[in-house]
Amino acid sequence: MDTVRWAILGAGKIAHKFAQDIQQVPNARLVAVAARDKERARVFASQYQAPIACTYQELYAHPEVDAVYIATTHNFHLEQSLACIEAGKAVLCEKPITINHHQLGQLTAAARQRGVLLMEALWTWLLPAMQQAKAWVKEGRIGAIQTIHADFCYLMPYEPEGRLYNPQLAGGALLDLGIYPVAFTTYFMGGSPDTIRATAIMTDTGVDASTSMIFQYGAVPAFLYCSLAGRSKVQAVIMGENGHIVVPDFFKASKAFLYNAEGKETDRFDDGRSTLGYNYEIEEASRCFLEGRTESSQVPLDSSLAIQEILTTVRTQIGLKYPFE
Amino acid sequence: MDTVRWAILGAGKIAHKFAQDIQQVPNARLVAVAARDKERARVFASQYQAPIACTYQELYAHPEVDAVYIATTHNFHLEQSLACIEAGKAVLCEKPITINHHQLGQLTAAARQRGVLLMEALWTWLLPAMQQAKAWVKEGRIGAIQTIHADFCYLMPYEPEGRLYNPQLAGGALLDLGIYPVAFTTYFMGGSPDTIRATAIMTDTGVDASTSMIFQYGAVPAFLYCSLAGRSKVQAVIMGENGHIVVPDFFKASKAFLYNAEGKETDRFDDGRSTLGYNYEIEEASRCFLEGRTESSQVPLDSSLAIQEILTTVRTQIGLKYPFE
Repeated sequence: MDTVRWAILGAGKIAHKFAQDIQQVPNARLVAVAARDKERARVFASQYQAPIACTYQELYAHPEVDAVYIATTHNFHLEQSLACIEAGKAVLCEKPITINHHQLGQLTAAARQRGVLLMEALWTWLLPAMQQAKAWVKEGRIGAIQTIHADFCYLMPYEPEGRLYNPQLAGGALLDLGIYPVAFTTYFMGGSPDTIRATAIMTDTGVDASTSMIFQYGAVPAFLYCSLAGRSKVQAVIMGENGHIVVPDFFKASKAFLYNAEGKETDRFDDGRSTLGYNYEIEEASRCFLEGRTESSQVPLDSSLAIQEILTTVRTQIGLKYPFE
Repeated sequence: MDTVRWAILGAGKIAHKFAQDIQQVPNARLVAVAARDKERARVFASQYQAPIACTYQELYAHPEVDAVYIATTHNFHLEQSLACIEAGKAVLCEKPITINHHQLGQLTAAARQRGVLLMEALWTWLLPAMQQAKAWVKEGRIGAIQTIHADFCYLMPYEPEGRLYNPQLAGGALLDLGIYPVAFTTYFMGGSPDTIRATAIMTDTGVDASTSMIFQYGAVPAFLYCSLAGRSKVQAVIMGENGHIVVPDFFKASKAFLYNAEGKETDRFDDGRSTLGYNYEIEEASRCFLEGRTESSQVPLDSSLAIQEILTTVRTQIGLKYPFE
């Protein structure tokens, strides 16, 4: 076996992006699409020449599916990931992988017990521009990290029932956008910050329209921001003692820029890709599956757990509790 | 009378900068220098052709001095400003004007009762580049403000007895450097933020080596940072819905850059000055004095009070209390 037979669970926007990019991945093939509404699954599947269209329950039992990409709203991730794992299928689950770190502990235990691959779809970490930025840091090109700034705003119309503003669907800026600046910082600083300070503007529906955060790692602070109701540069800057790195549109980074202490550009990276960028995570998850591994070393569950703990702490500080928690 | 007869109280580094720049101010003249050590005052005074060299006490009583610039460490500001005010002399006091807002309330009351000019030496607010940046905002060139970022780090050797690290001298990054990002934000957002979140790294001497802050004004967050022990870009960025403004070295701003929504530079300002930039505050304070005003409309005491309240809140959050408070 040299390609993994993938299914997509959920037929929303992100599922289409995944279906598009998997076409360019050598060790992966889309064979199935599952949706609550079988007709919707059929339309989706035929669009990408996937032979199987089915319901969630049928998917869990389907013998011709090796791995499942979970693309539903955050609130369903635990239940659906567990069902896949219990059926012995590898899981690549959209981020945030669960709603809180308690849920992730439960999920991780299930995956380990069953011996199947579980990976959070932190596609950003697998992008070449991110890896180049990390290589520059490791090579000492900017010296010791001094500060990190990252912000991700995406102006979304206020629809109280929609996915983004609905507390029943685990909405809000933090879990949808904020996870990117948090993941960016975690990628470079590792583990958990010593101190977290957060404040938010809440919507009438009781989720965060925007969240502002400071994470302190020893002497290094990270200043992070996300908003569904405002605008920002959408870039990340790693300031070092001898230079800095700018990653524009870091959540989908295709470029990275290196500057010296005088602020002059000294290097740049552009991956020149034609995909949206989801191909890298699909390839990594497929490689792990084919090698019989239960965890990716590039997106380890410990990192997912660290991010979950951070997000939970931030939510406690800003008073964001979901009705089903 | 068309020029103000100025004295400098204190003979440190900042006093020299003031003495240098006052030479370029048409409505001001340096006539006196006062230091604890009279010989030190004499050397300083002769260097700038000031006829009077004296002690603090002699200065308060000197009939040929109209206005006093107070250039000592923060902890002495209240006592010395009060002495000048009681002697009927106008006061331009280095920032922070006092250690906390209680002290400033006391000082303001004294100045108002005596009817003399009192102004905080917030020279940054009077710089043409800052005023240009504010004009761009008012003209709608960047649309509504979305976020502010400002950081000021200045790597200083750790000297426990020195001014910067000594709690007896009201040391620490916040009052020395942090006041600039705080003042920058106050200049553009006005008044007091709705929410303040701060965290600090403390030195062994018990002052802050660095402080990280979020101020939330309605939906607009400001991310501020200062450090005596780290590095940063030392720039301020005002992000708007249709563009952004960058003010490099904003504490002494001589330039400002305007960018449109696509990130292209569309305007820039450079004051091309030959002074350090203190001339603008000296000119403004002198103009107020000559017009018989007791307060500057450009650096009003209410703004100084707002900054004092912010700094006090931040200090409470980071646990920075001075031994004499």
